Amino acid sequence: MAPVPNPRMIYAKPIPQGAWPVVGEHLVYDNSRTIDPETVPLNGGFLTKALYLRTRTNAAQALSRTCGRGCAKSIASYSSPMLAGAPVVGLCVMQIVRSEKPEFKPGDLVYGASHWELYTVQPYMEARRIWNPAEWPWWTANMDDFGDAQKIPDPKGAFSLSKYCSVAGSPGMTAYVSWKKYANAKKGETVFVSAGASAVGSLIIQLAKLDGMKVIASAGSDAKVEYLRSLGCDVPFNYKKKAYKEVLGEHGPLDVYYDNVGAEALAAALDNMNLFGRVIICGQVAEYNVAPEDRFGIKNTDMIFKRNVTVSGFLAPYIAGEYMGQFFEDVPRMLAEGELKSTERIYEGMEAAPQAFVDMLKGGWDTAEGKVVVSLVGM
Amino acid sequence: MAPVPNPRMIYAKPIPQGAWPVVGEHLVYDNSRTIDPETVPLNGGFLTKALYLRTRTNAAQALSRTCGRGCAKSIASYSSPMLAGAPVVGLCVMQIVRSEKPEFKPGDLVYGASHWELYTVQPYMEARRIWNPAEWPWWTANMDDFGDAQKIPDPKGAFSLSKYCSVAGSPGMTAYVSWKKYANAKKGETVFVSAGASAVGSLIIQLAKLDGMKVIASAGSDAKVEYLRSLGCDVPFNYKKKAYKEVLGEHGPLDVYYDNVGAEALAAALDNMNLFGRVIICGQVAEYNVAPEDRFGIKNTDMIFKRNVTVSGFLAPYIAGEYMGQFFEDVPRMLAEGELKSTERIYEGMEAAPQAFVDMLKGGWDTAEGKVVVSLVGM
Repeated sequence: MAPVPNPRMIYAKPIPQGAWPVVGEHLVYDNSRTIDPETVPLNGGFLTKALYLRTRTNAAQALSRTCGRGCAKSIASYSSPMLAGAPVVGLCVMQIVRSEKPEFKPGDLVYGASHWELYTVQPYMEARRIWNPAEWPWWTANMDDFGDAQKIPDPKGAFSLSKYCSVAGSPGMTAYVSWKKYANAKKGETVFVSAGASAVGSLIIQLAKLDGMKVIASAGSDAKVEYLRSLGCDVPFNYKKKAYKEVLGEHGPLDVYYDNVGAEALAAALDNMNLFGRVIICGQVAEYNVAPEDRFGIKNTDMIFKRNVTVSGFLAPYIAGEYMGQFFEDVPRMLAEGELKSTERIYEGMEAAPQAFVDMLKGGWDTAEGKVVVSLVGM
Repeated sequence: MAPVPNPRMIYAKPIPQGAWPVVGEHLVYDNSRTIDPETVPLNGGFLTKALYLRTRTNAAQALSRTCGRGCAKSIASYSSPMLAGAPVVGLCVMQIVRSEKPEFKPGDLVYGASHWELYTVQPYMEARRIWNPAEWPWWTANMDDFGDAQKIPDPKGAFSLSKYCSVAGSPGMTAYVSWKKYANAKKGETVFVSAGASAVGSLIIQLAKLDGMKVIASAGSDAKVEYLRSLGCDVPFNYKKKAYKEVLGEHGPLDVYYDNVGAEALAAALDNMNLFGRVIICGQVAEYNVAPEDRFGIKNTDMIFKRNVTVSGFLAPYIAGEYMGQFFEDVPRMLAEGELKSTERIYEGMEAAPQAFVDMLKGGWDTAEGKVVVSLVGM
């Protein structure tokens, strides 16, 4: 086989704090390289061909805080940044083409962090940092290490492989393992899910309904509210039209609050917690781009002790282990049986990748968010 | 035996919101009643003679929010109020004088909620509300029911019975059961205890040292800082002289934060939590007398998920069961063996009770707070 093009997307240079990346400037489509899949040396590893690409969860933070190799020591982020000049790293669904590792066979499907490029010799190295914990604040995680490729079951057409970028992949796992670990769900209880139309939120709603709970969920448009209703949500509402505190005061008290938003949503939930309530903090999207001093300010943390509440914050990679096996058993089966709904926003081809990435960062669609996925199927 | 005086302290009338009670007006010493301990009918109960009186933990809130029998439906408090015109109810150490209940014998020592009066036929009724849960917000606890008298071991002189109002009683139990349940203490870890010179804080410091932890603790005067040092605290500091964030930045990160203060202390602790840290919220004394809209406002709740932190709030009565037996085994033994330090502020006689109560509410001593206790021993 002759060499073939190996298209990729480069993270060309750091993005100024607070600015959006510009297609062709910060995020660059590059089709200049070729590779011969039959002869490229594997050095004991294996060669993958990417099928679906997803940005890593913390891409926005990683990008805006990156300042080039080695200068990030004092950055108060919880994840290691990407390297300027190298391909973007994200979670990908890939198929093994050739392998010198006995545990991976040609045709196997794997999911994990990799370069945004068509063919990659694994472990991917070009965009990988040399991780020396001593150079980083103690709380920083090496996101690369979390993403080592793992085999995924072949759905054999029962559902699209793109689901491994959403409900059957990292966002789904985030929702699933945190729900199992912290919700302590009981039939007849009430849960509130903020950002219910997000990839994580939409699975939480469905898991809570399977557990027999009454589900309240918020979103930012009427179309999303309809989406929430289609997921089985009992009390969907548009927080831009009706205040969190009003809806929760009317339909609470809450036994569980699943927080994807923070700020007003968190404050309203705390005011409406039931005794022995559980708050699970997955993320706080309302304040990611707000300077610390300008943030909302939670003034009712007293509710945490007055209602005997437990608040559990988590980073999925740290807690996934306990329930990961159960996740890979349950979710693909439920997907195959049509028990779970999810949406993705599919962009076709590597040329579309930079725009997909920018759109993912900006978000704000009127309909269900869905994970942004770049499809390379057929390339 | 002829009738004898039965002095008591009356909660005469509600105190305006935000004001301090006035001795002789809101809190009244009353010596007009007599009782014949040998002949007073017991109605199947038992007669106690009080030895030490302590206000109930939530007395300040109960008083300022009380507005007379039956009008408190909409009050956003977590505990039922006291009744105007009746004796104050607080936690007391008492001795059984006569009994018609087989489980209580004359001479037995008991600890629980009772009237602030010398002799009381139990169950005490005069200040007891008729509890109808339907009339109260769902989160309101019937504090009376938590306080039913329970037998306590006789220390036989190994330590003063007044300790059952402090380290061996409700504040000690609050500290002990919450520490055992939530701290997950490991040798070599670091804990920060705010309001370290309080009854709860001073026991937490000692328990953490017994668990082999490095202990940072704050207090509001240099004399209290010396007291913290005498308890074994490694890094005691006066928060009025050195900011929380400065000390925690220097001596953290924290594996555990035991919060008695809230506000700046909580915000600084969150900024300095270690991965997998535990925050235990026992109380937030900095904001009890601050209107909700004027409170500090916690702007870094994102640290809860970024550091995979669990925040556990609690009300002691709800969680005490699990570790109560262990508490009553451990703490009296440690006290008898001189392993635990604690202080009380003893006021002598029922005449001193109103002033003791007011002083307890105002607090703010320069030396270790210590629980305010009224001694009736010898009366």
